Amino acid sequence: MSMQDAHANGRHLRARRLGLDTHHEAVVLMHKDCPVCRSEGFSALSRVELGVGDRRVVATLHQVTGDWLAGDEAGLSESAWRRLGLTDGETLTVVHADPVGSLAHVRSRVYGNRLSEAALREIIGDIVKGQYTDVHLASFLTASATKPLDHDEVVALTRAMVEVGDRLRWKPAMVVDKHSVGGLPGNRTTPIIVSIVAALGLTMPKTSSRAITSPAGTADAMETLAPVDLDVADIHRVVEREGGCIAWGGAVRLSPADDILIRVERALDIDTEGQMIASVLSKKIAAGSTHVVLDVPVGPTAKVRSAQAAEALSAGLVAVAETFGMHVTINLGDGLQPIGRGIGPALEARDVLAVLQGAPGAPRDLRMRAVALAGSLVELGGLAPDGAGAQVAADVLDDGRAWDKFQRICEAQGGMRVPPVSHHRRPLLADRSGSLALVDNRKIAKLAKLAGAPDDKAAGVALHVRLGDTVAAGEPLCTVHAESPGELAYALDYAAANPGIFGIAPG
Amino acid sequence: MSMQDAHANGRHLRARRLGLDTHHEAVVLMHKDCPVCRSEGFSALSRVELGVGDRRVVATLHQVTGDWLAGDEAGLSESAWRRLGLTDGETLTVVHADPVGSLAHVRSRVYGNRLSEAALREIIGDIVKGQYTDVHLASFLTASATKPLDHDEVVALTRAMVEVGDRLRWKPAMVVDKHSVGGLPGNRTTPIIVSIVAALGLTMPKTSSRAITSPAGTADAMETLAPVDLDVADIHRVVEREGGCIAWGGAVRLSPADDILIRVERALDIDTEGQMIASVLSKKIAAGSTHVVLDVPVGPTAKVRSAQAAEALSAGLVAVAETFGMHVTINLGDGLQPIGRGIGPALEARDVLAVLQGAPGAPRDLRMRAVALAGSLVELGGLAPDGAGAQVAADVLDDGRAWDKFQRICEAQGGMRVPPVSHHRRPLLADRSGSLALVDNRKIAKLAKLAGAPDDKAAGVALHVRLGDTVAAGEPLCTVHAESPGELAYALDYAAANPGIFGIAPG
Repeated sequence: MSMQDAHANGRHLRARRLGLDTHHEAVVLMHKDCPVCRSEGFSALSRVELGVGDRRVVATLHQVTGDWLAGDEAGLSESAWRRLGLTDGETLTVVHADPVGSLAHVRSRVYGNRLSEAALREIIGDIVKGQYTDVHLASFLTASATKPLDHDEVVALTRAMVEVGDRLRWKPAMVVDKHSVGGLPGNRTTPIIVSIVAALGLTMPKTSSRAITSPAGTADAMETLAPVDLDVADIHRVVEREGGCIAWGGAVRLSPADDILIRVERALDIDTEGQMIASVLSKKIAAGSTHVVLDVPVGPTAKVRSAQAAEALSAGLVAVAETFGMHVTINLGDGLQPIGRGIGPALEARDVLAVLQGAPGAPRDLRMRAVALAGSLVELGGLAPDGAGAQVAADVLDDGRAWDKFQRICEAQGGMRVPPVSHHRRPLLADRSGSLALVDNRKIAKLAKLAGAPDDKAAGVALHVRLGDTVAAGEPLCTVHAESPGELAYALDYAAANPGIFGIAPG
Repeated sequence: MSMQDAHANGRHLRARRLGLDTHHEAVVLMHKDCPVCRSEGFSALSRVELGVGDRRVVATLHQVTGDWLAGDEAGLSESAWRRLGLTDGETLTVVHADPVGSLAHVRSRVYGNRLSEAALREIIGDIVKGQYTDVHLASFLTASATKPLDHDEVVALTRAMVEVGDRLRWKPAMVVDKHSVGGLPGNRTTPIIVSIVAALGLTMPKTSSRAITSPAGTADAMETLAPVDLDVADIHRVVEREGGCIAWGGAVRLSPADDILIRVERALDIDTEGQMIASVLSKKIAAGSTHVVLDVPVGPTAKVRSAQAAEALSAGLVAVAETFGMHVTINLGDGLQPIGRGIGPALEARDVLAVLQGAPGAPRDLRMRAVALAGSLVELGGLAPDGAGAQVAADVLDDGRAWDKFQRICEAQGGMRVPPVSHHRRPLLADRSGSLALVDNRKIAKLAKLAGAPDDKAAGVALHVRLGDTVAAGEPLCTVHAESPGELAYALDYAAANPGIFGIAPG
């Protein structure tokens, strides 16, 4: 065998699908003693380029010394497998990855320099191509926090995030939208708002996210009522027919960099103003929205914890939105406790139905917040003078037009569904009498997640009391819903170990 | 089965060793549908706590959907496996990891606040305990670069890094040491310097690193001449007998946080002054050194690229060292080209032997640099007035006392060895006549690594020319040494594709 052969053969490996979930980061496992590792001089965590035909993916190498992976195998993470569109046993070439040019810009930012629009465009482009490891992303996000992005950088970042993805374009000159800054369990106003404003003739093509760290995203809850996995063509069809939709954003590539960055922000538990503004606005601009209402719940356990923080965020949002010709209204709301009764996909969906149907037991707080936000859109849309929007919205809800519109939207999205009901339940009882003084949003959310939400659609928590309510010792404060005894037990253990979920003041 | 049983069983998995090299970060692979993932509500990249008996390790969860990992198996990375001291098939408990307290300090730094000594102590303690993912480390390092660590922070970081590891303590009041900031291939002065100053009666317990991204660390080269894997007791025995040693630092836990941080710095390709100072000084303080000479090569392709950068680094090093009562001298050196002829463990060892033995062909530059640095230590040690140290050092080298001392040290470390010789070689020929105007340190280092260094001890590059030499077209500029035809071919391909390794000016 000639040197050239040895060398060429040394670079080829058989692809093996490991089903490894590493989020966006592509990972390849290779045996430490495999010919390619030796001939290319790879070491653990080297960045390598995987090639099949004309497809290329940059991946992080994890070396293995066990015998479960053969010397001529390359074990791929799902992210790498999907991007290469592989079939098991296909032959891969593996070589050193070229240095990522835009990382020089990241390093420059790390050393305190500002970034130009061109530099940010390169960075976002490489991020979406999968060229960055989570370590690179963490460095970029941290550098943008320790020396906060200035207005120009936020505008450039937002533009770069929009340009790298798909864009929805609409015939109507006015397209309304709504976004909740989040952190508040059960805040499922979106399906109600879309139904109200669409019933009034406004255009609202709403794309929502699934839960990342919460017990349910709007898409998870809506999915128990109708299909949400719509592509760009579906979205256009539904919106042109009904004026609105409630779709999962993951099926369309609107600001795809945001989905990658947000996971690392969660891992670092940092959430900087500049990144939040670029994240929210890039999604809205890509969706073709022209008039947007932002729902910002404020509370000690909500994402935005003080009025000052909310004001600063709002000012930044409005300033950046203006440069894109977008009209934004901010609605600050009470973020002291969850909205509605249900926390978890199906339980939240039932709250939404109750409000739309005007059911006797419908949660008033969810209805009020939805009406307030829809009212803002009605005013932004010029259908009512300032201050009169909420009443118009309330009327559409009360006379059944919103419920009718919601059913039409569900039909257009593929047919209405009945939310599932859990098989295992247990109430949490008040350990003393008094008045409910505190609900910890974060602990309630964790309780619902431990019970199985959002993967188990019927799992979660149903609240029976609200702040200020008088409760008697032994009275149920909430009911935990689960699909398996183990999950129910685990959630109950957590509740037993965390008495601070509810706070009862002697009344 | 009761809920409690379901719940308890849900947490148990069989440990499986995957031999996965993820450096310090502990990783566990579990099936997405395994009972523990469901009952605990884990998601991809969750941080989990693995437990066996009273041992605990926090690991990053990678979820698998393939069938190669069973539902009741937990596949562990080597880092996790070793820390738990497991045997195959042992039963593991897996639960949610507690939040890492010190990450609040990191977030505070990310948002631009200074860190107290107590906060840095907590951070470094958790890093060494393996509580940080590479993403956390990247954020900490970036925050310390974008808003550079101030003097107090560097001092506190250095102290924390020392305290978290082992410390060597010595009877002599004066313990000398030497450190090269690095980036220069073949810069193997350490064994020569130790032999000279130990022969003069000074105490120099030198611990050196293995290569991380370079073709050879001092420990890799020295290992071809004698065992270097000494524990604390061995080091004391050797040094008390011979006055000096050349050991691998990895066998002793001197500033263990440094080894963890440095890998992430390399991945990010950032190397901040504050971190560099804490890195260098924490190792020296932990080694019990009182008088240190720092070798700082300066050149466009060396780690320190300008005289100004060298001055700033030197000033910071001296200021921080003073607060620990350590005397530091900086020797700026020419970093324009590699030192000596060999690049790679065995080839560099042969240069060292040639200088110690006063062989006719011994590389003059290596000898001169070793003599200059040893001279500084001789002066620091008070054995010669300023300016006269180099002559004293040269005498010890020329009259054979250094060579004699080196052999005694090798014997004390476990017996002298003969460096191996490569089996495959090929020269790189000058493509034109002229004078050698440039040698790219980084490309030469990469060439040596592609040839197999440092894993293949005999592999690397032997230089035949130096800057300013007149070369004729077709004359060998260097010889590539490898242990396999494939590696030799790959290195030669790289050389063919990168004509810029050597620059020949028409002369």
